Amino acid sequence: MFNSIRSIIIGNPLASWQARSARLGVPLAFVIVAANAISSSAYASEEILLGLNVGGKTWHVDIPFITAAIAILLVLVMLSYDYVIRTYPSGGGAYVVAKENLGIGPGVVAGASLLLDYALTVAVSVTAGSAAVVSAFPSFIHFRVPLAVLLVVVLTVLNLRGVRQSAQFLALPVYLFVGSFLLMLAVAAYRHIFQGLAPQPLPASIMVGAPTLSAFLLLRAFSSGCVAITGVEAVSNTLNIFRPPEVRNARITLLVMGVVLGVMFVGLSAVAYVYELRPVEGETLVSQVARLSFGSSVFYYVTQLSTLFILVVAANTSFSAFPPLAARLAHDGFLPRPLSNLGDRLVFSNGILLLAGFAILLIFLFQGDVHQLLPLYAIGVFIGFSLTMAGMTRYWRQKRGHGWWHSSLVTGVGALVTGTVLIVLTVTKFTTGAWLVVVAIPILLSGLAVIHGHYRALAESLSLENHVPAVPTRRRVVIIPVGGVHRAVLPAIEYARLIGRDVQAVHVAVDTETAHVVERRWDRLETNIPLTILPSPYREVVRPLVDYIKKVASENPSEHITVVIPEFVPRRWWQQLLHNHTAMLVRSALGRQDRIILVNVPYHVPR
Amino acid sequence: MFNSIRSIIIGNPLASWQARSARLGVPLAFVIVAANAISSSAYASEEILLGLNVGGKTWHVDIPFITAAIAILLVLVMLSYDYVIRTYPSGGGAYVVAKENLGIGPGVVAGASLLLDYALTVAVSVTAGSAAVVSAFPSFIHFRVPLAVLLVVVLTVLNLRGVRQSAQFLALPVYLFVGSFLLMLAVAAYRHIFQGLAPQPLPASIMVGAPTLSAFLLLRAFSSGCVAITGVEAVSNTLNIFRPPEVRNARITLLVMGVVLGVMFVGLSAVAYVYELRPVEGETLVSQVARLSFGSSVFYYVTQLSTLFILVVAANTSFSAFPPLAARLAHDGFLPRPLSNLGDRLVFSNGILLLAGFAILLIFLFQGDVHQLLPLYAIGVFIGFSLTMAGMTRYWRQKRGHGWWHSSLVTGVGALVTGTVLIVLTVTKFTTGAWLVVVAIPILLSGLAVIHGHYRALAESLSLENHVPAVPTRRRVVIIPVGGVHRAVLPAIEYARLIGRDVQAVHVAVDTETAHVVERRWDRLETNIPLTILPSPYREVVRPLVDYIKKVASENPSEHITVVIPEFVPRRWWQQLLHNHTAMLVRSALGRQDRIILVNVPYHVPR
Repeated sequence: MFNSIRSIIIGNPLASWQARSARLGVPLAFVIVAANAISSSAYASEEILLGLNVGGKTWHVDIPFITAAIAILLVLVMLSYDYVIRTYPSGGGAYVVAKENLGIGPGVVAGASLLLDYALTVAVSVTAGSAAVVSAFPSFIHFRVPLAVLLVVVLTVLNLRGVRQSAQFLALPVYLFVGSFLLMLAVAAYRHIFQGLAPQPLPASIMVGAPTLSAFLLLRAFSSGCVAITGVEAVSNTLNIFRPPEVRNARITLLVMGVVLGVMFVGLSAVAYVYELRPVEGETLVSQVARLSFGSSVFYYVTQLSTLFILVVAANTSFSAFPPLAARLAHDGFLPRPLSNLGDRLVFSNGILLLAGFAILLIFLFQGDVHQLLPLYAIGVFIGFSLTMAGMTRYWRQKRGHGWWHSSLVTGVGALVTGTVLIVLTVTKFTTGAWLVVVAIPILLSGLAVIHGHYRALAESLSLENHVPAVPTRRRVVIIPVGGVHRAVLPAIEYARLIGRDVQAVHVAVDTETAHVVERRWDRLETNIPLTILPSPYREVVRPLVDYIKKVASENPSEHITVVIPEFVPRRWWQQLLHNHTAMLVRSALGRQDRIILVNVPYHVPR
Repeated sequence: MFNSIRSIIIGNPLASWQARSARLGVPLAFVIVAANAISSSAYASEEILLGLNVGGKTWHVDIPFITAAIAILLVLVMLSYDYVIRTYPSGGGAYVVAKENLGIGPGVVAGASLLLDYALTVAVSVTAGSAAVVSAFPSFIHFRVPLAVLLVVVLTVLNLRGVRQSAQFLALPVYLFVGSFLLMLAVAAYRHIFQGLAPQPLPASIMVGAPTLSAFLLLRAFSSGCVAITGVEAVSNTLNIFRPPEVRNARITLLVMGVVLGVMFVGLSAVAYVYELRPVEGETLVSQVARLSFGSSVFYYVTQLSTLFILVVAANTSFSAFPPLAARLAHDGFLPRPLSNLGDRLVFSNGILLLAGFAILLIFLFQGDVHQLLPLYAIGVFIGFSLTMAGMTRYWRQKRGHGWWHSSLVTGVGALVTGTVLIVLTVTKFTTGAWLVVVAIPILLSGLAVIHGHYRALAESLSLENHVPAVPTRRRVVIIPVGGVHRAVLPAIEYARLIGRDVQAVHVAVDTETAHVVERRWDRLETNIPLTILPSPYREVVRPLVDYIKKVASENPSEHITVVIPEFVPRRWWQQLLHNHTAMLVRSALGRQDRIILVNVPYHVPR
């Protein structure tokens, strides 16, 4: 029954040979990989405007410079990840690049930051989605958290069904967003160039007494705008979803994603500059531009709705990127091994479930107050960026292959810039949430270190080097504890004789009368197996038995002691209550000891 | 730690050879055995008065006849139980007498009625005690049920500590009750005879128009008064607490108990008759007599308090009588076997705990409303009485030994009278609670029948008659499932070679790459054990393994298949989360099958 429910929800199991047909070409892979990255174009330009808004005046004059700088950084990051994909075609992204080139420490830092980030993305995206629904239908106000959890569950099921299913399901909102966004920008450009639509003059009062911007404020605005670049790393972590030739398809997808993202981000910033738009409390920049382009026609609502959708769909990228990364860390012994098991539907099911659990935990912890989480998100991504680029720089410098100087310049400058952004973000947003990263990442890392310590000790102890095969002994000591002499004991005797040579039976004499009966009947069985009667002045069964087994074990220091326990197996569960559970009690009292092997031989109670 | 807590609460274990010194002489045995019986003298006479109170007039003229009739019945019952003790010196009372002489059915009915009764006694007694406390301290009103449960827990602990401890603890209240009660009766008699204290004249109005009593009403009053006799059966169920010579000590205790009970019951009835006392709402008969004897001196309060205590202490008799009876029924296969295990302190601990649980359940079910339960109590006892006496009559008539005619007359008349009382009680109290017995006893009996059916089928199947010893085969098929080739597998291989001849290893190929590694390393081990690689297109481990084991079992229809599973045993509990639990999953997927023996060979993870 459990299996059929599972089939309905997540579908029938897929065989390993079906793996190839489950993979995606560029159009569907784009949906999975790019959702997160392009969703940032919905708010990156607005972050720049907010950064440039000081003393009531928005310094539009600086928008082109900052946007251009971010666009250049985007190109640098894309070029770097293009190198990463080509250099490490089996995936693993920042974790593998940092581990291979900078050492295991930076590798794990990069991996852990990205894992944390993906969980944050899910939490932030679904809470933003549920907040939008609640603001549209205020009577749902108390359902904000449950609604967010429900969205996580939907995404979880979708991803457990497999990557193809979720891509097909989410293709419409992703392409609708891209389409309506580009249309919106085109109309805005057309109306400015051909219809001469100009910015509305600002009230003069605002212009008075506003300070000029310091270098630090410019840097801060730049850093905030860098949120536009987040998500570009996803391709390097999801190489396993691409149809062969994987590297070529991944590079095409990366290029398409970079161009689309660049056009959307630069375009929106340009419109904001040209029309001198300012950040308005209660209305997003996208909404201002959409009104400007479409008025209040149906296109306006389509744009708004698809922007809302893309924010939720962005969470789906995490569901594709987190599990393989977690599987890789698990494979290297930094996370529990079961995370590296491929599930029924050829996805890392345990990783998907872990991500969902982690995201739901964050939603409950922060009760849907996502603004605290946003800075954390960008910081984690930029830890990944800077370590990746530093790692690739090291790679080029060590390899010194064709064009190494040029390549290492790209990644070196990228590493410097992203490192600077990382520091600026941490400092400027420290009090509003970035301190959490400073707390969370070390905790996460020490957890990974403990897990790794266990696996390393295990692996060392498991090594077959210097292994001297034990000389097999042939005594084959077997002990059969008997409570009474009856048919249920016979399978145990039969088995004991089969595997043992030095077989003995023991009976714990809780009362002497029964002990005599047992002795008499045992003799009548004519097994030639000696029976020892153990005294039990305190009428206990388990302790005398355990003591005796240990004594036999210490008298035979190089032998295995097999304890063959006859066990009643009733037909119905309640019949369990009608029997003493000696077998179970002996097992728990003995614990698991080397050389002492406990065997239950079942006797099936007929009714 | 668990053991030391247990030592503090119930004491250190007692050895079986200490059993003799744990037993009791007559003075302490009286405390245990008689508490229940003599407690009924506190309310039996009042029951007669209530029965004779019709139309506002109490027919005192009938008190002597009814009291005398009950006293004669008491003598008959005592004589019968004296026979029972002598005839069945190993105890068992009504259950054994009825089973041996009337058949297994009546025996179980008698046993079940008494078990139900003992549980009711506990529930009724402690609820009466807690109600008395609550009426003295009304602020405890919400604690009536918790207080009753607390009293059950105290009695349980006391009895788990052993019968001697509880006797010593309860001797004071029992003897205080007997002493103050007898003193009260003596003073009342003295004041009537020597000080000429006479009854107060009743208002004349009461005498007008009162009907005369019908034979049925007299019979009903008689039946209600018969509550005086309840508890006499306890001796026959608690023979195991007496110091040798058991039978002699038990008979002395029975005699003492009968005389004390008789004097108290007849004496109180006589005082009520002489002083023409009537039942008064809100004051017990004992309180009326105590005021009459002691005024409001300290003796009045001592009498009242000791009467309250005896009602609670009466419950203790059940704790001594229920467990041995339950153990006997368990021994005969009508109740779960563990009830017949003697515990650490030489008492049937499981029986004590069952009684406590049963009583607490009743307290919660009836929320301390004990009046509903009182009729049930008397009915159960009289089922036991009539079956015992009928059984003894049958015994005498079949044996026809010396004086059989005289003895069978005693028990025969007794059986007739107690049978009549049983019917009258059931009819007159049917609507006020006796219907519960008509429901409860059949339910209880069918439960016992189901249990007995299981044990009987088991015993039949366990019989060694017609048992043909299996011809031991020597193939010794062993399968070792291996996930990887490393040191943890070595103990399993070593053990498999020790016990097996036809040994093979299997590896489930979740991914082909690992499978190749396993194959290569296995060859390098040079074990000469063949390794089978099982394909697993759906990346499952458990199902292919279970299917393979079943296949091997069906290919070797007369062999045992031993599956030796290497198992990681981590040091710390959380490390369990870091491993796949294949051994456990295989065990639960296979279930317990004949001929398939699962063995875990532990490998201890070093840290």
